[in-house]
Order: sequence, then C-alpha cells, then structure tokens
Amino acid sequence: MTINAIKILGVVCMNIIVASSGGPTCAINASIAGVWREASECPAVGKVYGALNGIEGIMQERIIDLADVLKSDADVELLKKTPASILGSCRCKLPPSDSLEIGNRIYDDILAVLNKYKIEVLLYIGGNDSMDTVSKLSAYLERNNSGISVIGIPKTIDNDLPETDHTPGFGSAARYLVTTIREIARDSMVYNCNSVTIIEVMGRDTGWLAASACVLNKLGDGFPHLIYLPETPFSYERFLADIQEKQRRHKAVIALVSEGVKTDGGTYAAADRQSGKQDIFGHSYLSGIGKLLEELVGERLNCKVRSVELNVLQRCSAHLASDTDIAEAELVGEEAFAAGLDGHSGVMVVLLRCPFGPKGSYSVYAGRADVDLVANKIKYFPKEWINPAGNHVTGEAAEYFMPLIGDINTLPEHLTLDKRLQKIVTGV
Amino acid sequence: MTINAIKILGVVCMNIIVASSGGPTCAINASIAGVWREASECPAVGKVYGALNGIEGIMQERIIDLADVLKSDADVELLKKTPASILGSCRCKLPPSDSLEIGNRIYDDILAVLNKYKIEVLLYIGGNDSMDTVSKLSAYLERNNSGISVIGIPKTIDNDLPETDHTPGFGSAARYLVTTIREIARDSMVYNCNSVTIIEVMGRDTGWLAASACVLNKLGDGFPHLIYLPETPFSYERFLADIQEKQRRHKAVIALVSEGVKTDGGTYAAADRQSGKQDIFGHSYLSGIGKLLEELVGERLNCKVRSVELNVLQRCSAHLASDTDIAEAELVGEEAFAAGLDGHSGVMVVLLRCPFGPKGSYSVYAGRADVDLVANKIKYFPKEWINPAGNHVTGEAAEYFMPLIGDINTLPEHLTLDKRLQKIVTGV
Repeated sequence: MTINAIKILGVVCMNIIVASSGGPTCAINASIAGVWREASECPAVGKVYGALNGIEGIMQERIIDLADVLKSDADVELLKKTPASILGSCRCKLPPSDSLEIGNRIYDDILAVLNKYKIEVLLYIGGNDSMDTVSKLSAYLERNNSGISVIGIPKTIDNDLPETDHTPGFGSAARYLVTTIREIARDSMVYNCNSVTIIEVMGRDTGWLAASACVLNKLGDGFPHLIYLPETPFSYERFLADIQEKQRRHKAVIALVSEGVKTDGGTYAAADRQSGKQDIFGHSYLSGIGKLLEELVGERLNCKVRSVELNVLQRCSAHLASDTDIAEAELVGEEAFAAGLDGHSGVMVVLLRCPFGPKGSYSVYAGRADVDLVANKIKYFPKEWINPAGNHVTGEAAEYFMPLIGDINTLPEHLTLDKRLQKIVTGV
Repeated sequence: MTINAIKILGVVCMNIIVASSGGPTCAINASIAGVWREASECPAVGKVYGALNGIEGIMQERIIDLADVLKSDADVELLKKTPASILGSCRCKLPPSDSLEIGNRIYDDILAVLNKYKIEVLLYIGGNDSMDTVSKLSAYLERNNSGISVIGIPKTIDNDLPETDHTPGFGSAARYLVTTIREIARDSMVYNCNSVTIIEVMGRDTGWLAASACVLNKLGDGFPHLIYLPETPFSYERFLADIQEKQRRHKAVIALVSEGVKTDGGTYAAADRQSGKQDIFGHSYLSGIGKLLEELVGERLNCKVRSVELNVLQRCSAHLASDTDIAEAELVGEEAFAAGLDGHSGVMVVLLRCPFGPKGSYSVYAGRADVDLVANKIKYFPKEWINPAGNHVTGEAAEYFMPLIGDINTLPEHLTLDKRLQKIVTGV
C-alpha cells in the first residue's frame, strides 16, 4: 500500500520498526530521531517500534514502543546528542540468499514476529554488512509476498559505502579528529627537541577518516605532516625516510596512520611485522600499528616519540559532533521512512551533493539506491586524491571533506607563537 | 622594593619574566594570562617577558616580549583557550643546592641573563620538579643578594602537589575524563553481550585523576564500576574477581586503572608483569597496564574486552576545559605576580577552599606556601577516601572533586533506555 493509497483510504493501520546494526557512531540516534519525527506525525502510522540489538532483537522479540521512550521534543533533541545507539546494535550475518525460501527457520521466525507486530516497514541502520541483512531480508520478504518493505539507512564512521556521497557518522568522527589533532599538536610542540607523534586512526579497509585530517592543512595549521592510508602500500623504510625528511623543517612531526595500512604483500602492516611473535600470554601481539611505529622510530631515529590510538573516542565523542552530520543523519532517517511508505524495498537511502549553487557552496539531497550495490561492497578513498609520494592527500580531498565536519567557525582555535614569531623581538 | 614603595616613588623600572616547565595541561596559558593582565596594567612594571622552554630559555636567552604576542583582550582570551603552553616547556633539573655559591656556571649564567633584562620577578609555572627549580634558584638569588624574586605557580593534571587544595590543570583533565567516560560507556553498552572496557588514566604516582571519575557515580550514571589507584596495591587475581563480581549485575563493566598501579612488591604492575619480556624489536615491552589487563581478561574471562588509553588527550583537550579550572589558573597567575611585587621569593601560590559558606558551596582563595614544602614532594590520594575493597572511592571524594570539573549543567547528557526501561511495554 503506498502513502497515497493510505491517504485516500484514511486508514491507520501500518506499524513500522527501526533497528541499528554494526559499529556505533555519533549519528545513529539522529537517524532514529528522523524516523520517529516523520513516522509519529504520519496519520497512516500506528506504532513506531524499535528492535533492540538489530535483527537479533526482532528474532528474539525484544521490541519496544518508541512512544514510551520519546515523550517530548526535548527527549528527541537529547536523543540526537547521544552517541552509539539507544536501540543497541549487533554483528549478525543472516544465512545465504539460497536459503531464502519458506522453510528457513531464521527467516520464517523474523517474518512471524514482523507479522505479529503488524509491521509493514522495517528500517535498518548500518554499514556494508548491515546492508547485506537488508538485501537478504527484503528478497525473502518479497519472494514470500509479505508486503513488508525493508529500507537501509547508511551509517559508518568509515565513509566506505558505495552510491552515497558520504555516510552519516563520518562527519562527526572527522570533526573529532580535526579538533583533537589540533590539540595534540599543541601538546607535542611544547618541548624544544625533535619529536614524532604518531596518531592511529580507525579505518580497517579504507583511509577516509585519516585523510579527513587534511582539513587542518587547508585551514592553515601546517599539520598533519604525513597521512598514511590503506589504499597505498605501506613501507617501514619509506615511513622512516618520510619522517626524517619532515624533521628537516619541523621539530615536532605529526604523522597519521590508518589502523589498516598494508604492506606491498597486501597483509596488514601491523600483522606482517608481528608474524610469529607472541605476547606475554603466549598469543599473538595485540597492539596496533601506532605502537609498532612508535617502537620503530624510537629504535631507528633516536628522538622523542609517542603514539596515540584514538580508539573508540573517534566514534563516540558526541560532544564534538558535526551539526551537518547530525542534520543529515536525521534527513536519511526521514527519507527512509518515506521510501518505506512509498512501498519501496531493498533500497538504501543515499546522500547526494547538489551539483549546482555557487562555488564552495554545499547542500545535499537524499536519494535511494539498490541495496545490492552497497551490501558487502567497499568504496575506497580515490587514488587520484593521494599525493604521488603516498604520504598525504590532495587539496581536492580537503574540498570534499570540509563541509562534512560542520561549522568551521566553531572549531576550537588556539593562540600560537609560530604565527607571530616573525614580529617578535628577542633583544632587550 | 615592595609594591607600596614603587607606588610612592612612581617609578617604572621593574621587568618581570614568566616561564613554564614540566608536562602540559589545559590551564598553563590561563596562568600566563593572569600574570600578563596584572603585570601589564601595573604602573611599576616595564616589560613582561616570557622565556621559551622554561629555565632553558633563560639560560639560552630565548626570551620574548609578551606585548608582541598579546596585543588585545581577544588575544588573551584566545590564549586562555589554548592547551599546552604558548611559551613551551622543559624537563630540566638544576644542579644540587650545595653548588649554589657564586662560581657555579649555570646559576651565574641565569643571573647574568636576568640582570641583562633587568628582571626583578621570575614566575615559574610547574609541578613538583619545577618547584625544585624555584627552590634552588630562589636560594641562589637570595644568597647572592640579587634582589630577584622567584615565585612558583602550581600546575599539573596529577593534582599531587602538597599545600594546595588542588592544582590548576587538574579540573580540566577531570572534566575531560568525566565527559569521555560517559561517551565510552554509551559505546560499550551497544552490544547484547558481556563486555569489559578498561580505561587507562594518567597518574604515575597518584590516583587523583582516575579517582575523579567517581563524579559520574555521584551524578547517577552508575559507572565506572571499578577504579584502581596507585595508592592501593594491585593484584591481577583480585582484579579478575572484581570484574566477575560486577558482571553479575552489569553486562558492560567499565573499569578505570591508573597507569601507575603497583603490585604488593611496590613495582609498577605493568613492569612487573612484563619483566624479562622483550618486544619485536628486542627491547622491553612498552604497552601500558590497560593493554595488559585487556589481554588478561581476554585470556581468563572469555568475554569481549577492550582497553582505551586516554594518553595526552587527558591533558590537552582544551575544548573540554573546566571553567572553574581556567579561572583559578588565572587567579594563581595574578597572585604570583602580586607575591613577587611584595618582594616574596621561594614561595608557591596555593589554592585554599573557603571553609565558610552554605553546605555544598564552593569558593577558593589564593595563598602562599614555602616552596620547599612542595618541591620534589608528592601528595597522595587519601587512604580514607578509598573503599575497603580497594577498587573504588568514597562519596567524600566525589564531594571534593565535584566543584573542580566546572559547570555540571553543561556536561553533555544522553538519553538512555535503562533510565526508562521499567516503563516500557514490550508486548503488542
């Protein structure tokens, strides 16, 4: 039944359910808020349910009525400022699509629960893996003429989903990174000696997040001096040479490295280096590439060195969320609800940049893409945005990232001597 | 010459110099701002100099005129928001006090530079080690009748200086901790499985900073569930037993551990565990107690586990600075200048809580303490504020910490299901 049919009939019969899956971000709850706002105001909708811990919550019938949680506009606004997901998450892979016929217990169980709650639209927030769930489930439900739509809502700090210009959650992680690196830089420049600061950034497959720090270079900060992405083969010797080259001009060198950088052989640099080594408990060495490079620099370059692993702080620091990101996350939630009402299924909402408007201006609109173009696929950082040396990114990349991090006028600014030193007289 | 004498004579002849030393904090620059504001408005003061990189900058005559840097009120306000130290820092220990006679080249060189710049007051911002510099230098300058005052300005995120109720820089680090742990908690609770999150907090000798997270318990967050301080001997087996005990009631256990926790034998727990072990480069294992406990939990408790090392972020996240801390850092800068003008030397400014006022109210005033009561000394977290099990702190500690983190009404808040779950109907 389409939204128009509902409007004509004037019926209130449709329940919807929303759930989230995969790694947390700062913007998932904004998408839930977007769904809620649109759905709760729609006369065609009865109940707006939330499943706890993604598809697992549907299978296990752990379902809540969002009206019991979101009782006021203030609640919805607070939800938008809350990191992770109020509905929880899961890491669950559904059985392969050749088992989509009736009789497969998992799918049948899911359908039974959806029918029990009179669900006609399931909205699923997630990344590449979660879109696999959307793909399989929508195919099963369609094959069985259930009349239930399944719509994907994109989400990942990795920004690695095809078809969409960028992913909700990414802009806030990038804003966290930009703010934090600026502060770490102040800290690292405090001593009058050569130092190297290595910052390990999330990104197992792609370097979008690490690359986004180039916004600082564009803003005139002059750092990070080096950025290493999984898209370029990593070499320890080139890394050391790069550091030494930067040390000629900078006392405090700041290098960013994606956790997933790989050597020429295609294995993770950290894993490659650690092969066969065991830690104190007798199992494989756990620490990441940052700590490893810290040791390498300490061993080989004889200077002060520190590594900082930004860890989950990159994805949960909602106090530094990008306002643009939160607004867009809400938008994709709204659009996903609209797509479900329109009777679509097996699609993911995408964000597309408006190609018009004055140079430097930025606006997006929401579209819909076949979820099979997204599920289990990875959008890599463009090779043409990586510099020839493979240790930084281009100005074009900075243009792409700049609007995503939100209002740059509210980024914390610092007073620094280097900007003014040329004017300073050191004599009496 | 005292300030009164100057006022009577109407002379403008006195130059002063400020410098900072030791580890960075978010509040050092506010103390520099405090010095600048008072000194630049005082008719008795000619030049307000800054030495780059602490006492090293004086020895090497790397000295700037702060008037060339702070040209407007906006500059001063921006300085107060800038982490680390605009003047840089050093880790420098002066020769022992039995070499304080004329003829010791280092001290003579320092005096020559101070005389060259007509310095009458040296203000030195730092922690326990930096107060050693204040102590030795003030003794030397007094013994040689230089007429130069040396005043200490306290600063450390460790909060471990005697004589002062607390130290500038600490409140901002504590506010960072409280904000960040609240966000990490959201992230850690997203999956429907048992998990342990171990957060490693700075504090080599004392547990003040880790303990400050108890503010969250007082605010009703219910976490951190466990806090381990260097003041209580650490045991791996008790730690594992504590985790298991907490897992009976909490799916996601959050444990804080000071980097400097020590075993019964008095050695650092991390070092103790790592003794004799070498890393992939053949030198001693570098990672901290957090990573080590992560491995231990993974090995022994068979549940999801993650460690987060907050690293320099604790001391450089100026965007989360405590307004109280920044105001107090400025106050001690102002008071240090006043002490110098009064002709005092060999003292450190201290913060003292006003003992009067209604219950729960908070205000401080600045006092002065003999720097020898502070230099090289450590104020430990009070034993009576540690719970009998040695794995958390008391409500009295929370009362102490609460005002230091600044305005609690502007701490980021979150919407959580657990607060509302009792109302939620999971049936149709």
